[in-house]
Amino acid sequence: MSSPTPAMLTAVINLLERLRARRPLVHCLTNHVVKNFTANALLAVGAAPAMVEHPDEAAEFAAMADALLVNVGTLDAAQMPAIERAIPAARAAGKPWVLDPVAVGPLGLRTAFSRGLLAHCPALIRGNASEIIALAGHASRGRGVDSGDGTDSALAAARDLAGRTGGAILVTGPVDCATDGAAVHTCANGHVLMTRVTGVGCAQGAVAAACAAVSATPLEAAVAAAAIFGVAGDLAAGRATRPGSFQTAFLDALDELDADRLRRHARLA
Amino acid sequence: MSSPTPAMLTAVINLLERLRARRPLVHCLTNHVVKNFTANALLAVGAAPAMVEHPDEAAEFAAMADALLVNVGTLDAAQMPAIERAIPAARAAGKPWVLDPVAVGPLGLRTAFSRGLLAHCPALIRGNASEIIALAGHASRGRGVDSGDGTDSALAAARDLAGRTGGAILVTGPVDCATDGAAVHTCANGHVLMTRVTGVGCAQGAVAAACAAVSATPLEAAVAAAAIFGVAGDLAAGRATRPGSFQTAFLDALDELDADRLRRHARLA
Amino acid sequence: MSSPTPAMLTAVINLLERLRARRPLVHCLTNHVVKNFTANALLAVGAAPAMVEHPDEAAEFAAMADALLVNVGTLDAAQMPAIERAIPAARAAGKPWVLDPVAVGPLGLRTAFSRGLLAHCPALIRGNASEIIALAGHASRGRGVDSGDGTDSALAAARDLAGRTGGAILVTGPVDCATDGAAVHTCANGHVLMTRVTGVGCAQGAVAAACAAVSATPLEAAVAAAAIFGVAGDLAAGRATRPGSFQTAFLDALDELDADRLRRHARLA
Repeated sequence: MSSPTPAMLTAVINLLERLRARRPLVHCLTNHVVKNFTANALLAVGAAPAMVEHPDEAAEFAAMADALLVNVGTLDAAQMPAIERAIPAARAAGKPWVLDPVAVGPLGLRTAFSRGLLAHCPALIRGNASEIIALAGHASRGRGVDSGDGTDSALAAARDLAGRTGGAILVTGPVDCATDGAAVHTCANGHVLMTRVTGVGCAQGAVAAACAAVSATPLEAAVAAAAIFGVAGDLAAGRATRPGSFQTAFLDALDELDADRLRRHARLA
Repeated sequence: MSSPTPAMLTAVINLLERLRARRPLVHCLTNHVVKNFTANALLAVGAAPAMVEHPDEAAEFAAMADALLVNVGTLDAAQMPAIERAIPAARAAGKPWVLDPVAVGPLGLRTAFSRGLLAHCPALIRGNASEIIALAGHASRGRGVDSGDGTDSALAAARDLAGRTGGAILVTGPVDCATDGAAVHTCANGHVLMTRVTGVGCAQGAVAAACAAVSATPLEAAVAAAAIFGVAGDLAAGRATRPGSFQTAFLDALDELDADRLRRHARLA
Repeated sequence: MSSPTPAMLTAVINLLERLRARRPLVHCLTNHVVKNFTANALLAVGAAPAMVEHPDEAAEFAAMADALLVNVGTLDAAQMPAIERAIPAARAAGKPWVLDPVAVGPLGLRTAFSRGLLAHCPALIRGNASEIIALAGHASRGRGVDSGDGTDSALAAARDLAGRTGGAILVTGPVDCATDGAAVHTCANGHVLMTRVTGVGCAQGAVAAACAAVSATPLEAAVAAAAIFGVAGDLAAGRATRPGSFQTAFLDALDELDADRLRRHARLA
């Protein structure tokens, strides 16, 4: 006996198939620590990465790519103008962009910079609870890239941000939470080893951008990014118990992921 | 019954042995995405990497190293003067340099910059068909780091570039093609999983620079880089079927590669 | 029959337990090649990484983090002011900082810059023999990131540096040597495969900073960093014989390391 597949799971399954058929090219303006892993995660899931950093080229390329990721993890004076020029170029070309507000809250410059980017209406924002709360202007207890706040406590902030941007918000944590301001979906997949490999969350932001390039709605892209990473994490944790081998197993799992595995393992609500 | 070993294969085998005996130090001015993998590929094959980025030091170091790689994948305002100072320093010291024109064609700044570098006579240029066609000034169908053109269609462009630089050109694809403008050699090794791991092609450019440091001719270095990467890719694909584990297996295969494995597996013509 | 555990080994074992209980946040201003591996090594051993590069934020963050690593491997014009602002901020907040003088000696700019940093009294300096000798102002035979000098020959330089900074010096090599200017400890663990993976030494500098955040003395942190990396290298070399798989096994071994494994394998004197 099998229960009927919920509509959102069907949408996620269809999205992954579209992603692999279309192979969206994701322009990543992301942090230095995770560029390699992010590119490999995009390739493993079936998308294509490109990282074009010079401000002149970043604007030129944003219009050619299918989606743009902006991750402020190692924001510096060279990357800021590249971001500021790439976002309007992507929007002018009708391409979605995703904001990953890494460590927004405790650090002043990136917090002000990221809040300023909200006016450019990201299709999707992905962050942990502390980052989402801080980005919305609430008080946070975050420390660097770790979240000191629970996912639930970030839901109000996420709804606010969704209302202000017209996009979807993905709050990551033990249970991920996605909202477009109205509907709320959760994804209870994933494994603690994902927090022991640097850049898993950052790579999820890039995959969310790939999803946004082929999704019907930003909310669907947010749920798909949560389900794809969560289920891949579960599969990898079944094969590797330590962080070095988990990293390898996780990339393999992104490649292996398919409709059947999503259907069997995704814990969406 | 064994067929006689062709002269070029013997040259490649001898080159790999020289490379491991001399352990050339390769100065890499390369893109941010692939620095780690490039360094690991050089170490695995038996060479030594170094990445010195400040323009003052880049010039100083280019003269000390045995070869220089220039890869424009994430060209930015800080790297451009480092490249412009390192190349003349390498040449003045009699060290070969290799150009990898990543995504030249669709992006204006790097295309103009890379064409300008041709006057400095790279010993070797490594690119996919679209990049080689665009670098030579022909029309291309490239999209980011992917090639929209066939290897054959790039041969005319490669011959042109070889004539203008006096060096060799390696056009990568399902069948790699190397030319010095006169002779043409092909290498039919390699596996599609090599395109599912970021930086394999970029790392090949660095290994090509290591080969150029110990080769009799640029053409020999181009064929050696094709054969080393192609055979290592074949060996790795025999052990790993997904991109995460393939990346690991590929580095292991570069280390494992020897005269016997080259002799048995290399498909040179 | 078991021999009594030496006092320093007990201190190292206790330090590792404290590190995992407190999970120190290490601010890494390090080179581009090794950022990902460094972050993964910190996570694997039980610490937390963060890399904040903008000078304004680097100063702000250095006071929040538990320790600071400065590695000059790819020093550039953007990173120099970040380093110059982060160090005084860390010291004002009472946080230790570690200097890794990569390739100091042959390269002029980083040599002068690193010597200038000595006035800021790093708690710990980690380098190979050539780097330590050159940093102290003696003559060196280093070539890029390789050491042309023996560990023993660096001991005089290390004692000098310890005297000038009030900190500890870790000279790495086949046998690591740590001194605070008075006592000298050696660690005879480790495997040659550690030199075939890029960034192992650089990651050790970051782990040394994590150790310094929880250690009673800088000398104890230096010995702990040597023992943790040496024993993890030995464990990994028992499972992997080539550099790709060794890299994975090494991260797993950092995670697996515990009091029992340190007690059985550490070769301290």
